[in-house]
Amino acid sequence: MSTADLGFARVDLDREHRQGLPEVVYGPGKTPAQIAAIVRTLLAHNTGPVLVTRVDEEPARAVLAEVPGGRYAPGARLLVWRPASATAFTVAVAAAGTSDGPVADEAAEVAAAIGLDVRTVIDVGVAGIHRLLAETERLREADAVIVVAGKEGALASAVGGLVACPVIAVPTSTGYGAGLEGVTALLAMHASCAAGITVVNIDSGFGAAMAAFRLAHVLRRPR
Amino acid sequence: MSTADLGFARVDLDREHRQGLPEVVYGPGKTPAQIAAIVRTLLAHNTGPVLVTRVDEEPARAVLAEVPGGRYAPGARLLVWRPASATAFTVAVAAAGTSDGPVADEAAEVAAAIGLDVRTVIDVGVAGIHRLLAETERLREADAVIVVAGKEGALASAVGGLVACPVIAVPTSTGYGAGLEGVTALLAMHASCAAGITVVNIDSGFGAAMAAFRLAHVLRRPR
Amino acid sequence: MSTADLGFARVDLDREHRQGLPEVVYGPGKTPAQIAAIVRTLLAHNTGPVLVTRVDEEPARAVLAEVPGGRYAPGARLLVWRPASATAFTVAVAAAGTSDGPVADEAAEVAAAIGLDVRTVIDVGVAGIHRLLAETERLREADAVIVVAGKEGALASAVGGLVACPVIAVPTSTGYGAGLEGVTALLAMHASCAAGITVVNIDSGFGAAMAAFRLAHVLRRPR
Amino acid sequence: MSTADLGFARVDLDREHRQGLPEVVYGPGKTPAQIAAIVRTLLAHNTGPVLVTRVDEEPARAVLAEVPGGRYAPGARLLVWRPASATAFTVAVAAAGTSDGPVADEAAEVAAAIGLDVRTVIDVGVAGIHRLLAETERLREADAVIVVAGKEGALASAVGGLVACPVIAVPTSTGYGAGLEGVTALLAMHASCAAGITVVNIDSGFGAAMAAFRLAHVLRRPR
Amino acid sequence: MSTADLGFARVDLDREHRQGLPEVVYGPGKTPAQIAAIVRTLLAHNTGPVLVTRVDEEPARAVLAEVPGGRYAPGARLLVWRPASATAFTVAVAAAGTSDGPVADEAAEVAAAIGLDVRTVIDVGVAGIHRLLAETERLREADAVIVVAGKEGALASAVGGLVACPVIAVPTSTGYGAGLEGVTALLAMHASCAAGITVVNIDSGFGAAMAAFRLAHVLRRPR
Amino acid sequence: MSTADLGFARVDLDREHRQGLPEVVYGPGKTPAQIAAIVRTLLAHNTGPVLVTRVDEEPARAVLAEVPGGRYAPGARLLVWRPASATAFTVAVAAAGTSDGPVADEAAEVAAAIGLDVRTVIDVGVAGIHRLLAETERLREADAVIVVAGKEGALASAVGGLVACPVIAVPTSTGYGAGLEGVTALLAMHASCAAGITVVNIDSGFGAAMAAFRLAHVLRRPR
Amino acid sequence: MSTADLGFARVDLDREHRQGLPEVVYGPGKTPAQIAAIVRTLLAHNTGPVLVTRVDEEPARAVLAEVPGGRYAPGARLLVWRPASATAFTVAVAAAGTSDGPVADEAAEVAAAIGLDVRTVIDVGVAGIHRLLAETERLREADAVIVVAGKEGALASAVGGLVACPVIAVPTSTGYGAGLEGVTALLAMHASCAAGITVVNIDSGFGAAMAAFRLAHVLRRPR
Amino acid sequence: MSTADLGFARVDLDREHRQGLPEVVYGPGKTPAQIAAIVRTLLAHNTGPVLVTRVDEEPARAVLAEVPGGRYAPGARLLVWRPASATAFTVAVAAAGTSDGPVADEAAEVAAAIGLDVRTVIDVGVAGIHRLLAETERLREADAVIVVAGKEGALASAVGGLVACPVIAVPTSTGYGAGLEGVTALLAMHASCAAGITVVNIDSGFGAAMAAFRLAHVLRRPR
Repeated sequence: MSTADLGFARVDLDREHRQGLPEVVYGPGKTPAQIAAIVRTLLAHNTGPVLVTRVDEEPARAVLAEVPGGRYAPGARLLVWRPASATAFTVAVAAAGTSDGPVADEAAEVAAAIGLDVRTVIDVGVAGIHRLLAETERLREADAVIVVAGKEGALASAVGGLVACPVIAVPTSTGYGAGLEGVTALLAMHASCAAGITVVNIDSGFGAAMAAFRLAHVLRRPR
Repeated sequence: MSTADLGFARVDLDREHRQGLPEVVYGPGKTPAQIAAIVRTLLAHNTGPVLVTRVDEEPARAVLAEVPGGRYAPGARLLVWRPASATAFTVAVAAAGTSDGPVADEAAEVAAAIGLDVRTVIDVGVAGIHRLLAETERLREADAVIVVAGKEGALASAVGGLVACPVIAVPTSTGYGAGLEGVTALLAMHASCAAGITVVNIDSGFGAAMAAFRLAHVLRRPR
Repeated sequence: MSTADLGFARVDLDREHRQGLPEVVYGPGKTPAQIAAIVRTLLAHNTGPVLVTRVDEEPARAVLAEVPGGRYAPGARLLVWRPASATAFTVAVAAAGTSDGPVADEAAEVAAAIGLDVRTVIDVGVAGIHRLLAETERLREADAVIVVAGKEGALASAVGGLVACPVIAVPTSTGYGAGLEGVTALLAMHASCAAGITVVNIDSGFGAAMAAFRLAHVLRRPR
Repeated sequence: MSTADLGFARVDLDREHRQGLPEVVYGPGKTPAQIAAIVRTLLAHNTGPVLVTRVDEEPARAVLAEVPGGRYAPGARLLVWRPASATAFTVAVAAAGTSDGPVADEAAEVAAAIGLDVRTVIDVGVAGIHRLLAETERLREADAVIVVAGKEGALASAVGGLVACPVIAVPTSTGYGAGLEGVTALLAMHASCAAGITVVNIDSGFGAAMAAFRLAHVLRRPR
Repeated sequence: MSTADLGFARVDLDREHRQGLPEVVYGPGKTPAQIAAIVRTLLAHNTGPVLVTRVDEEPARAVLAEVPGGRYAPGARLLVWRPASATAFTVAVAAAGTSDGPVADEAAEVAAAIGLDVRTVIDVGVAGIHRLLAETERLREADAVIVVAGKEGALASAVGGLVACPVIAVPTSTGYGAGLEGVTALLAMHASCAAGITVVNIDSGFGAAMAAFRLAHVLRRPR
Repeated sequence: MSTADLGFARVDLDREHRQGLPEVVYGPGKTPAQIAAIVRTLLAHNTGPVLVTRVDEEPARAVLAEVPGGRYAPGARLLVWRPASATAFTVAVAAAGTSDGPVADEAAEVAAAIGLDVRTVIDVGVAGIHRLLAETERLREADAVIVVAGKEGALASAVGGLVACPVIAVPTSTGYGAGLEGVTALLAMHASCAAGITVVNIDSGFGAAMAAFRLAHVLRRPR
Repeated sequence: MSTADLGFARVDLDREHRQGLPEVVYGPGKTPAQIAAIVRTLLAHNTGPVLVTRVDEEPARAVLAEVPGGRYAPGARLLVWRPASATAFTVAVAAAGTSDGPVADEAAEVAAAIGLDVRTVIDVGVAGIHRLLAETERLREADAVIVVAGKEGALASAVGGLVACPVIAVPTSTGYGAGLEGVTALLAMHASCAAGITVVNIDSGFGAAMAAFRLAHVLRRPR
Repeated sequence: MSTADLGFARVDLDREHRQGLPEVVYGPGKTPAQIAAIVRTLLAHNTGPVLVTRVDEEPARAVLAEVPGGRYAPGARLLVWRPASATAFTVAVAAAGTSDGPVADEAAEVAAAIGLDVRTVIDVGVAGIHRLLAETERLREADAVIVVAGKEGALASAVGGLVACPVIAVPTSTGYGAGLEGVTALLAMHASCAAGITVVNIDSGFGAAMAAFRLAHVLRRPR
C-alpha cells in the first residue's frame, strides 16, 4: 500500500484503485493550506474526481487560489476537481421542505460530481401529500431516490411505499424542539413502516450520494 | 368539595358536576375489590358514565361480579357502566397498522362510552398512501380525527395535511429497535411538518378520547 | 393541484381552498428576498391571512419594505398580512411565568391574526396556585385554553383539572439544568395526571394557535 | 472503627454511634439467611432501630422466623426491629394518586420506625387541586412534607408554593409512556418553579424518610 | 386500488403489482388464525412469494396446518410460501459474532426467499481482523453486503472500507450494558468513518434483505 | 390575594406574608427596567429581603442605578436589597473544585442574604479525600451542609456518610464529555449510596440556599 | 491463520499464540452443546486456560458432563479449564457494596484463572469512607486495582485519589431509579475528578480482569 | 497533610509525595493570574513536572510571562514546567483521523512531559484497515497503546484485537449527527468486541496519558 505522509495527515494513494470509490476529503478542522496539500497529492496520484465537503466560501476561495482547476458550489459548500462524466445511473433527490435545501444540495452536487445523473424534486413534504403524488412517476423512473427530510422525516416512509428502487433517507437537523437536532428524524426513518429503506447520518448529503455511487458501481459491472 | 374516603383512595364525588368530564378510573395497581368499591361509589354519587381502563379479562370479570350492570370490552381492556347516549359529534379513529389495534380500540370504545359518534379507519399507514387517500372524504366529514400510529408515526403528518378539523395523535409502543417503545413516534409527531396537530401520551387511546370529549363539550355550549 | 415554482421553493397555491387552513410561512433559513417572494405569491393567489413566524426585527423590516401592507409584532417575532376578522371563538392563553412570554406572545398574535378572540392570562404558575385559582372563571369561559409553561410544565395539569374545554399545552425551553431545553416539560405534560389535555412542540406558540384554529373551524360548521 | 466480617458482608458496627443515623439494610440481592445474619449482628452491637427495606412477604417471614421480635409491614415491604419511640417532629406524607401508595407507605413506615410523627394525606394530585387546598392547613402544621408523585410530578411544585417548611419530593415510577419509569417526574421536580424543594431518588420512600430524620436530628440539638 | 377487508386488517391486494415488492407480513401481535387469513388472501390474489417474519415455532406450525405449502425456518423464525427462484444478484451476509446469528439468519432466509443469491460469512468481528481479511475476495465478488453486528458495530466500517458495492448495516441488540440494546451499534454505524454505508433498524434482518431486493430490482431493469 | 400588575408581570404581593419565604426574582430574560420595576414593587409592599439571581455586571449596575440601596455580588451574580440579619442557623457550603466556585458563591451569598450563618469549605473533592476528612468537624458542627460538585458528584456521598444533619446536594455543569452538562452529577447524586441526602437542580445554588432556609424556618418555630 | 469451522461458529485457533491473550468464550445465546464443542476445540489446539463466562448452573453442569476437567464457580457464573498458575502480579478487587458481589466475583475468578494474584476487599463504599481508608495500604500494595461499584460509582474517584497504580473501574447495574441500570455509574466514573482512572463496560468483571491481564503481560516482558 | 490556601483554591502540596502522580492543573474557568499563582506554589513545594491543560494561546502567554521557565504546546493547548526525563516505558498514540489530532496531541504531549517515551501513529482509521495493519509491529512493540478515535470509535476494537498490551481508548467529539458529540464513540468503545480494552472520558488525552503513567509507575516498582 502506498501512502503520502504530509506530516499532519497520511494520504492513502491507491484507495481509488484498490476500492474504486472517488476521493472525498472532509473539510472541517483543516486549514486551507492543509486541504490544498491533500488535494494536490490526490490529483497527482489518482485520475478520478477529488472533492472537499463542508467548506465555507472564504477558505474555499483560498484553496482554489492554491490548487486551480476546481469549482466551488456555495449552496452545497463543496469543492470539486475533475468531475466525472455523467453515467446512465439516475438518482432523484427529493427534499421535504425549503430548509432541507442545503443538505439536498450537498447530495445533488456530490452525486453529479462523481458521475451520477441527478434530478431534484423539492417541497414534497408529507403534510401536502398531493405535491408528492404529482411527482410519483419522476421518482419511479429513477434508479435510486435520496430522500432528504428533517422534523419527523415522514417523507421517507411515503416514498418507500411509492417506488421499488433503493431509497436512501437523509435525516436533517432542521426544525426545533422535539426534532432533537435530527435525532428524531433519524430514529423515525429507521422505525419506518416502509420496507427496505436505508438511512445515512444526519445532514449527510455526502453519505447518501456515496451510497448511490455504490449502487451505480455494481450496475456497471459486466454480467 | 365532597369526597368519599375509602381508606386506600379518596374519591372526588363532584368532579363530574364541577368540571363536566366523565369519570374514568385507571385500573393498573388496583385490586378488583378496590376497583369495585370506587366504581360503586361513583355510580351512587354521579349520574354519568363510569369507566375503568387497562383491566385484563380475569379481574374485569371479578369486578363485574361485584358491580353488575357493566360491560367489558376485551380488545380495549375497558369496563363501562352507564354509557352515555350518542351525540352528533363525530370522531374518526384512524390506525396505521394492525398492531396499533388495541390502542385504537381503547380510543374508540372510550369515545363511544362517553357519547361520541365513532367511525374507525384501519390499516392506512403512510407506506401505502393510497389506502389513506381513499379514506380522505370519510376523515374530512369527522369533527375530529384521532390518529393512532407507532413506529415512525408519519400518519399524523399525512392526516394533518388532509383535514382541517382537530387532529389528536396517539403514538403507540408498537414496533422495535429505533422505535424506542413509542418515544420515537411521540417525538416525531411533535416535530411534524403538519400545522396544528396535537399529541397525547404513548398508547393513550383513553387520553385521545377525552381530548375529543373536550371538543364535543365546547361544541354543545349555547352560543 | 396548482403550485408556483419559485426556484428555491414550490408554493402550494390552493391549500387554503383545499384544506381551509390559513397560510403560515416558517421564517428561519429563508432570506428576506425569499420570504417576500413567497408572501407575494400567496397574497396574489389566496384571499385569507398570510403569516411568517420567527423573523427577527431587521429581516422583518426588509420584507415589509418589499411587500407593503403587513404588520410586524416584535414580541412574537411575527409578520402578518390581511389578518382575519375576529370570530366568536374565544381562546385563553395562560402563561406560567414571565420567561414564557415570547412563546405566549406568538400563540396570542398568531391566534388573533387568524381570527380567534384571544384573552391572555400571565404569571399563573403552579407554585403560586392562588393566582391561577383567581382566574378560574375567565379560563372556564374560554372555548379553548392554550397553556404555555416551561420548567416542569405543571400548569397544564392544574388547568386541565379546572376546565372542561380543550387544553393545548405548549412546553417552553425556559429554565435550565434538569429542564433539558423544554424536553422535561414536554414529557411531563404528556405524563400529566389531568385527562384529555394535548401537547404541541416545544416553544410552538404557532402550533397551539393552529390547533385552536382547527377547533374553531369545526365549530363554524353548519349543523 | 469496629466491623463484623460476615464473609459476604462487612458490617459497620459503630455507624449509629459515630454518625447518629439509624441502621437500614437494603434487602434486594440478599438471601433471608444473609439478612438475618446482618440484622442479628446489628441488634447485638447497637441500641437503636434496625430496618430492612424492599423485602417481599415470603422472605420476610423467613427472616422473622430466624430473628424474632421484628414486625413486617407488607404495604411498605419493610421489616422493623426495635422501632424508636415517637418524637415531636411531624412529617406529612402527601401522595398524588392511589398508585403512589406503596412508595408513600415505605416513606411513612420508615419514618414512623425511626421515631418521626407521621401523618398521611392521599389522593391530592394537582388535576383536582381542591383536594390539595382542603389539606393546606394540615400540611402547614407539619415540620416537613414528603411529596410522593409519579407521572408529571406536579404535586411537588404546588405543595412547595403552599408551605414554608422543607419539602422532600419523591418521584415514582407509576404511569406509562412519557413518564419514562419515573425519570420524567424526577427531572420535572428538579425543574420546578417552586423555590427550595429538594428531591430524592425514584421510588425512594426510604430516602425521603431518612432526609426527614436528618432534619429532626438537627432540631433536637441543644441550642 | 383493490383491498380485502378481513375485519382486523385491510389487505392491500395490488401492492405487488403496483410497487413490485414481495409481500411480507409482520408476525408479532397477530394470532395464528389472523396470520393464516392474511396469507391465504395474499396467495390467492398475488403470484409472488409470501413471507411472515418473527414467528415462534408453535404458532408457525399452527399457521402451516391451516395454510399448507409453506416452509418454516426456525433459526430465522420465518414462514415462506412460494419462494422466488434465484436470480444472478449475489448478496453476502457477514455476521460479526455467534450471537448475531439469528438476525443474520433472518436476513439470509428472507433474501433467499425473495430470489437473491445468498452467501454467508460468519465470525468476522473486527477484534480478529484477520478473519475478515481472509474473506475480502468473497465479499468483493458480491453485489451487496449485509453486515450484521451488535456491540459497537465496528464491522460495518471495516467492510465499508474493503468493498465498493453497497453495504447495508444491521445493528443488533446483542451484548449488554453500554450496548444499550442495539442503539449504540445503530448510532456508531451512522457515525462510521467509511463513506456511503447505509443502515437499517436494529435487528432488522428483514429490512436489510428488502433493501438488497430493491437493488436487485433496479439491476433487472432493461437498459 | 393582592397582586400588582406591571403589564409584563403580575407580582404576588403577599407571598412573603402568606408563605414566609423571602422574595427572589429570576433575572434571565428580563430587562433591567423590568427587574427594577419588580424590585421596586416588592420593596414597597414587603418588609424582608429582595434578591435577583443570575444578573451580569452591566445590567446589575443599571438596575442599581434605578433602585438604590442594593448590593451586587459579582461572583454569585446576585443583587440584594435589605439583607436579613443573621440567625443562629449555620449552613456549611462545601465545594468539590475551583470550577464549582460560582455555584457555591451563589449558594453562600443567597443564604447569607436571607439570614443564614454561612461557612464555606472549598477544594474538598473526593479524589483527595484527606482534604475532606480534615474538615469533618467543621461540617459536623453545621445545621445543614450544601454540597456543590460537578463531574461525577461523588462529594455528596462522602459528606452524606460523615454528617448526620441534612445534606443538600447541588450538581454543577462543570467538566466535559461524560459529565453531560451536569446531568451525570444529578443522576449520580440521586443514586448515591449515602442515605437521606437530597438534591436540587443543576447549578442551582439559589435552590440549595432556599432549601436551607426552609430548615431554618422550621427550627425557629415555637415548640 | 488457522480456524476451525463448527458450522455455527468459526473458532480462531491461533489467537492465543498470535496475540497472547487467554481464550474466553461468551456464554449467553449458546447451547451447552455449542459451548462444549467450542471448548473442546480450544483445549485441543491451545495450551493455556479456557474460560466461559455468564453461564447458569444447569447448563454449566451439562457442559462439564461433556468436557470433563473443568470447574464451575457459581458466584461468578464462570467455567474454567486449565487455569494458569499464579504470577507475581497482584490485583486488588474492591467492591462498594454487597450487591456488587457477583460482578466482583467474576472479576476475581477470571483474574485468578488467567494467572493473576487476587485479593478481594468488600463493602468499602464511599458513604462509609473509614472502611475504605482502613484498606488503603492493602490497595497501595497491589499492582492494579479493579473497582466494582454501582449506584453513583463514587468509589472509583476515591480509590483513584489514594493509589498510584492503574485503576480499572467497573460500573454495575445495581441500585434503581436514577442509577439507570448502570449507565449513571459508567458516566460518573468517566467524569471522575481522579486523574487517569479507566473504565470498562457495565457489569463486565471479565473485561476488568482482561485489562489487568494486559498489564501483567507487559510487566513480564524482558527489559 | 499540608495545603496552601490561595483564597480561590486550596492547593494540595504533598500529593506528589503522597500518591506519586505528577501535578496537572485543569485550565478552564481559571484566570491567568489564578493559574500562575497555583503553578508557582506547586513549583515551590514539589520537585516534579507541573502541567496546565486546555489553555488557549493568549492566556498561556500571559501565564508564561508571570511564571517563566515553562513551554507552551499550542496543538495540545498545554503548558509544561520541569518536564520529566524520558523513561523506558513506551506508549504509542494511534489516531483514527486528522480531526482527532488535537486530542492525540494532548495525549502525546502530556505523556512526554511526565516522562513516557511516545510514538505517534496517525490516520489509521478502520475504514482503511491496511494503514492500520502496516503499523501492527510498531504498535505491538509499545508497552501501552492510546487509541484516539471519534465518530464510531471502531479503531479501539481493531487495535484491541492486534496487541496484547494495555489499550486505553479515548473517544473524541469529532464528527457530527449520530456521533452525539463523542457519546456514541464512548459507548461503542465500551461495547467493543475486543477483550480488556479500557476507556477514558471524551476528548481526554490528558486522562489517557495519566492512565499510561500509572502503568509505567507499577513497572518501575522493585520486584
